[in-house]
Amino acid sequence: MAEKGNISRRQFVASAISVAAASSLPARSAFAKVIADAALPQTGGPLIDVPGWKDQGIENLAKSPHAKLRDIPVRAVTISGGFWGPRREINVTRSIPTMHDLLEANGRMNNFRRLVGKSTAAQSGPVYSDSDVYKWTEAVGFVLQSGDRPELRASADKLINEVVAVQEPDGYLNTYYQDDRKSLRMLLQTQTTGHELYCIGHMLQGAIAYYRATGDRRLLDAGIRFVNDFLIPNYGPAPKKPIVSGHPEIEMGLIELYRITGDKRQLDLAGYILRGDKRIELPERRTIYMFSGTPFTARTKMEGHAVRAMYACCGATDYYMETGDPTYLQTLNTLWNDTTTTKMYVTGGVGSRSDGEAFGDAYELPNFRAYGESCAAIGNMMWNWRMLAVTGDAKFTDVIERALYNGINSGMSLDGTLYCYRNPLAFDPSTGDKIRNTWYDTTCCPPNLERTFGSLPGYFYSTSADGIYVHLYDNSELNWHLENGVGLKVAQKTNYPWDGGVEITVTPAQASEFTFYLRIPGWADHAQVAVNAKGVLGATPGEYLPIRRRWSPGDVIQLKVEVVPQVIEANPRVADDTGRVAIQRGPLIYCLEEIDQPSGISLSDVAVNPGRQPAEQFQTEFRSDLLGGTVVLHHTGAVYERGDSEKALYSRYGRQAKTRKVPLTFIPYYAWANRQASSMQVWNLLLQA
Amino acid sequence: MAEKGNISRRQFVASAISVAAASSLPARSAFAKVIADAALPQTGGPLIDVPGWKDQGIENLAKSPHAKLRDIPVRAVTISGGFWGPRREINVTRSIPTMHDLLEANGRMNNFRRLVGKSTAAQSGPVYSDSDVYKWTEAVGFVLQSGDRPELRASADKLINEVVAVQEPDGYLNTYYQDDRKSLRMLLQTQTTGHELYCIGHMLQGAIAYYRATGDRRLLDAGIRFVNDFLIPNYGPAPKKPIVSGHPEIEMGLIELYRITGDKRQLDLAGYILRGDKRIELPERRTIYMFSGTPFTARTKMEGHAVRAMYACCGATDYYMETGDPTYLQTLNTLWNDTTTTKMYVTGGVGSRSDGEAFGDAYELPNFRAYGESCAAIGNMMWNWRMLAVTGDAKFTDVIERALYNGINSGMSLDGTLYCYRNPLAFDPSTGDKIRNTWYDTTCCPPNLERTFGSLPGYFYSTSADGIYVHLYDNSELNWHLENGVGLKVAQKTNYPWDGGVEITVTPAQASEFTFYLRIPGWADHAQVAVNAKGVLGATPGEYLPIRRRWSPGDVIQLKVEVVPQVIEANPRVADDTGRVAIQRGPLIYCLEEIDQPSGISLSDVAVNPGRQPAEQFQTEFRSDLLGGTVVLHHTGAVYERGDSEKALYSRYGRQAKTRKVPLTFIPYYAWANRQASSMQVWNLLLQA
Repeated sequence: MAEKGNISRRQFVASAISVAAASSLPARSAFAKVIADAALPQTGGPLIDVPGWKDQGIENLAKSPHAKLRDIPVRAVTISGGFWGPRREINVTRSIPTMHDLLEANGRMNNFRRLVGKSTAAQSGPVYSDSDVYKWTEAVGFVLQSGDRPELRASADKLINEVVAVQEPDGYLNTYYQDDRKSLRMLLQTQTTGHELYCIGHMLQGAIAYYRATGDRRLLDAGIRFVNDFLIPNYGPAPKKPIVSGHPEIEMGLIELYRITGDKRQLDLAGYILRGDKRIELPERRTIYMFSGTPFTARTKMEGHAVRAMYACCGATDYYMETGDPTYLQTLNTLWNDTTTTKMYVTGGVGSRSDGEAFGDAYELPNFRAYGESCAAIGNMMWNWRMLAVTGDAKFTDVIERALYNGINSGMSLDGTLYCYRNPLAFDPSTGDKIRNTWYDTTCCPPNLERTFGSLPGYFYSTSADGIYVHLYDNSELNWHLENGVGLKVAQKTNYPWDGGVEITVTPAQASEFTFYLRIPGWADHAQVAVNAKGVLGATPGEYLPIRRRWSPGDVIQLKVEVVPQVIEANPRVADDTGRVAIQRGPLIYCLEEIDQPSGISLSDVAVNPGRQPAEQFQTEFRSDLLGGTVVLHHTGAVYERGDSEKALYSRYGRQAKTRKVPLTFIPYYAWANRQASSMQVWNLLLQA
Repeated sequence: MAEKGNISRRQFVASAISVAAASSLPARSAFAKVIADAALPQTGGPLIDVPGWKDQGIENLAKSPHAKLRDIPVRAVTISGGFWGPRREINVTRSIPTMHDLLEANGRMNNFRRLVGKSTAAQSGPVYSDSDVYKWTEAVGFVLQSGDRPELRASADKLINEVVAVQEPDGYLNTYYQDDRKSLRMLLQTQTTGHELYCIGHMLQGAIAYYRATGDRRLLDAGIRFVNDFLIPNYGPAPKKPIVSGHPEIEMGLIELYRITGDKRQLDLAGYILRGDKRIELPERRTIYMFSGTPFTARTKMEGHAVRAMYACCGATDYYMETGDPTYLQTLNTLWNDTTTTKMYVTGGVGSRSDGEAFGDAYELPNFRAYGESCAAIGNMMWNWRMLAVTGDAKFTDVIERALYNGINSGMSLDGTLYCYRNPLAFDPSTGDKIRNTWYDTTCCPPNLERTFGSLPGYFYSTSADGIYVHLYDNSELNWHLENGVGLKVAQKTNYPWDGGVEITVTPAQASEFTFYLRIPGWADHAQVAVNAKGVLGATPGEYLPIRRRWSPGDVIQLKVEVVPQVIEANPRVADDTGRVAIQRGPLIYCLEEIDQPSGISLSDVAVNPGRQPAEQFQTEFRSDLLGGTVVLHHTGAVYERGDSEKALYSRYGRQAKTRKVPLTFIPYYAWANRQASSMQVWNLLLQA
C-alpha cells in the first residue's frame, strides 16, 4: 500500500503524541476527537453508528437480522453493592491498574516504544504479547462505559497513542513481527503459530470497547486500516493469498467491526476464515488443535485447544447472526450439546487437559488435573451470550451464570491482584503447584477476567422486538428503553445469590404494553412470581417466564426461588466423579478447603452424607467476616478411618473402612485459595449406605 | 586399551563367522565352545561357576550373603499343559521366531552387519535398538535352558557372531554410536538419553541367559570386555570420568555378572551408579525421570519413568543382596509400600501416565488413559522376585502373581504374534487406538514378554537353607535338590487358576527332614492343607505355610483354596475407581468386552449388582472353545437407561436414572483384545442401592 500524504505516518503520529502528552485531559480528549474525525491522513472511513457509539452494547446487534435479542449498553445498568458491586470496584481500583503496571514492568508496552526509538529494551514476551495490551484496553473501555475514571482514561490514551504510532504505512501492526522479524510476517508457519490475526482480533475488540466508551476512534481506525488496507486487499479467496486463523479471535473482531462500519467485506472475510481455505493444507492434529483451518460447519465435536474452540464458536455464532446460514446454527447446536452434556465442569469451566490446553474426550473431566483455563470459561460465557442472543433460550443463560459465578469468578483473587490460569476442581498444595499468581508470562487470563467484570452490566438485560429480558440478578438499576423507544427503568433489589428473593420495580416512561421475560434459574426446583403481589402462573426453572401486560410506572415483580443446598451428582460416565457428589447452593458451587475442617483430616478421606433430605443436612451461615462476606455451609459428614489394614489399595467389596462423623464447612468455590495454601475439593465422596 | 594379539579383533571374528556359517550345527556348537574357552585373543577371564552354568537360576544367588532364598535353574521345572504350558509353547514356536524375523526385517541386525561391511543399509531404529536384539537373545537363552530348540539355537548363534564381530578393540560396542556417531559416545547428553549402558545391561542379561543354557561364552565375554576393558578403567569415581545411568538396567547386569565372575569391581561400579556422581549435575526433572543420578537411598517415592524406576529398584535389590547395606533395604521397603498402596493397578501394571511413560501421583490410576506398559509390569515382577529372595515374604509373591497373570499376560496375544505396549484397564476402539500390534518401532515390550515367559519355570520354586518354597502353581515337575544336596522331585497336579485344588507329590531322594514352604495365595479367603490326607493347621492367605517334617518319597500335600468370583473395590482415594468395582477370580482379574454383551449396550452404562453374597451372583462356566479355553463369569447386572432427560451431565443426587437388568459376561483380563476390536473395562459401576 502506498503512503497517503507527504509526511510519514510514523512522523505524524509521533508529533501528535507529543502535543497530546503536553495537553490537559479535556484538551487531550478534544484532540483525540479531532484525530478520530478528521486530522489523520488515513482514517477508517465513515461508520454506520446505529445506534450511536454510546448506545452500543457488548455486541451491537441493532441491525443483525438473525439475532432475536439485542444487547443493551454497559452504561445502561448500574450495579450497586450486592454480589458483583465489590468485585467490580476492586477490578477498577486494583486489578486493572496493577495489571497496567505489570504490563509495563514486563516490557509489553516497550515492545511498541522500541519500534519508534522510544525504548532500547529488547522485544519482550511471547508472540501474542500485543493481545494482552489490547485486552487490557478493552477492560478499560468497558469500565469507562460505566462512567469516567480519569486515571484509567489517561493511561489508555497514552497507550493507544503508543500503539497507533507503530502502525506501518500499509496497515500492518504487530510488534513481534516488525523490525527484525519482518520477514516472518504472514508466513504459513507464522499464521498457524504466530498469533498475528489473534492480536488484531483483540485489538479490534479493545478498540471498539474504547470507542463505545469515548467515541475515540484512534485505535479503531488503526484496526480498520489493518483490516481494510493490509488484510482485505491481499488475503482471502484466490487469487488473493490464503490465510488461516491460528488462534480464532479475528472472526469475532471482524464481525463486530462490520457491525459498525457496514463494510460487508469484513463479514465476508470472517466467513472465508470460518470456512477454511483448501489451499492451506495442515496436519489434522493441527486443525483440531486450532479449531480452524477446516470448514467450521463440518465440525461435530468440541476438541483441541479449548479457548481457540470457544472463540471459534463465538465467531461462528456472530456469523450466523449476520447471515442466517442454517448450517452454522446446526453445527453450533451440535457443539453446544457436546460441550454441555459431555465436556463441561460443574463450574462452567471447560478444557480438561493441560496437554494442549485442550478439551478431553467425552466425560473426561478430571478434578485434580483439570485445566479449566480462566480464558476458556470466559469463552464459554461469551459463546453462550451469543447463542442466547440468537434464540432467547434460557438454557444458554444457565451456562453463563454457572461459568460466571464459579469457573470465571474463581479466576481472580478476592483482592483483585492474583489470578488463576488453571481452575482445577481439586487441589493439593503439597504438589508444589502455586495456583494464584500476580503475573504469567502468558498473561491472557488476567486482562480477560478484567474485561469480563468490566462488561458485566451489559449481560444483565437484552431487549427484543416485544419487550425486555432479564438474565442476571443483583442490586442494580437499568435505565434504557424498549426497542420501540419507550423509556424504561428497571430496579432490582435482592440479596441474590445468597437468597432467592428479587424485587423488581418496572418503570416505563409511560404505561405501555410489552413482555417482561423473567429468567427462572435452571438450578431452582420451582419459583413463585407475582406482579404487584398477584401471583403469576407458569414459572418454570430453566425458562424465561414471559409476563405480557400493560406495565405502569412502579409495577413490582416479585421473584422467589428457594436457595437451598443441593447435592449434585455427575453422569455415571464421568469416571472422575463416580461415587462423589458436589454441593451447590443457588448458582454457586461449593467446595471444601482443608483449612476450614478439623485438623488432621485429609479431604480425600472425607465423605458427604446427604441422607433422604439433603437440604436439611446442611446448615447455612452468612459470615460477614470471611472471604469478603459469604455464606458457608455446615454439614456433618464422615471421615474414613484408615488404620494400617485399611490402607490397602484394593480390598474386598463390603469390607468398608470404618468412618466417624466429622463437622465439615463448605465455602463457595469462587472464594477458594484466598487464604493460606490448602487442599481443596469440589467432588466429595458419597458416604456408602 | 591396547589391542592384544596381532590381528585385529574384527578381522579375527569375521573369519571365525565364516567358518561357523559353513559348518554343520553340532560342529558350529563345538566351534563356539572353542571360542569361549580358549581361542579368542581376548576373553572375559575365569568364571567362578558355583554352581556350574547349567545349575544357575534366573539369578545366581548361590553366594549372595543377604539372599534368604536361592533361585532354582529354569530347566529344573517342567510345565506340562495347564495354564502356562500352551502360552510357553506358543512363545517358543510363534513369538520368538516371528520377533526374530521382525528384528531382521526392521534392520536391527543389519545395524551390526553394516559395521563390518556386510550390509549397506542405513542405521535403523532408535538409540536403544541393540537392546531389543539382546532381549531376544535372552528369551532364546531361557528357552534353551528348558531344552534344545535347534532352530532357535542356530539363529542365536548366528546373531551372537554378528554382535561380537563389531566390538571395538577397546571393548566398546553399540551400533548406534559406532561409525559416524562415534564422537557422541559417552558424552553427558548421550549418557542421559543415548542408552549405551542400558544396551550393555541387556547384553549382559542376554549373554548370561545364553551362557546358562549352552555354556557358550562368546556374548558373555564381549560383555565382560565392555565392562572390564572399556568401562571400569575409564569410568567411575574421580579421578575416572563420571557416568550416570540414563535408563537403569546396567546395575542388574553388572551385579549378575559379578555373581559369576567374582570380580568385585563390577559390583562396586553398580554401587557407584546407584549412588550417583555429584560431578554430574542434572535438572531435578531429569533425575526424577531417569530414577537415577541421585543417591538411590535418598528416594522416598516412585516417580518418573516407570520402567526406569522398576529396573533401578531391581538393581538396588541385587546390590542389597550382595552388600547387606541396610539403607538400601529401608529405601526398597519404602518404595515398595508406595507402589503397592498408591500406584499399582489391580492388574499389577504400573506407570499410569503416557506423558513420560511415568508413575503418576499417589492414587492417580486412570483406567482409559492408563499407560501400564508391559515392560513396567515385567519390571514389577522382576523387582518383587528379588524382594522375595531377600525376605521370603509372600506379599512379594502375591504381586508377582498379580502382575504375571494379568498385566503381563495381557501384553501378548493368545496367538503369540501381537503385543500390547500399553495395557489400559478400559478401552474404546472408537478413539482409533490400535492396542495390539506385531511391531513397535520401540519394540522393548515384545522381547521382554518373550524372555519372561521363557524364564517362567525359574519362578516356581526357591530353596532356602532349611528347605524349599513353592511360589506358583501349575501342572509341573521339579527335579532339583535341596541346598544340602538331597535330591528332590516335586510334582504338581492342578487345574489352577481355574480351581484352587493342588496336589503336590514330594519325592526326596531319601527320606529327609526339611521345611516345605507352601504359598497360600493372598487373594484366598482361607485355605485347607493336608499332608497325606491329614490336615495341617495354620494356613494363612498371603503367607507361606512352613511344613516341617521328615519327608518321604511320595508324600502328598493337598492344598485347597476356594476359587470364587470376588468383588474388589479400590481405596476411596483412587478417584478413577470410586463407585466402581472390579471382579477377580483366583489370581485373575476379569473384564467386560462389549462383544460378549447384549448388543446396543455401552459398557460405560453398565453396573454390577453384587448383593450381599457376591460369589452367588456370578455363575462360572468353562468355555473350552473360547480364547484358548477359559472360565467366563455370567452375572445379572444392570444398565442405566438414558432417555433424553437422563443425559444431563449434572443432576440432583437421588434423581437416579432408571436401570434395567442385563446379562453380563466377563472374561479374564489377560484375554482381552483377542477378537474383533471392542470396548473393554475392568472397573464397572456399582449399582446404587
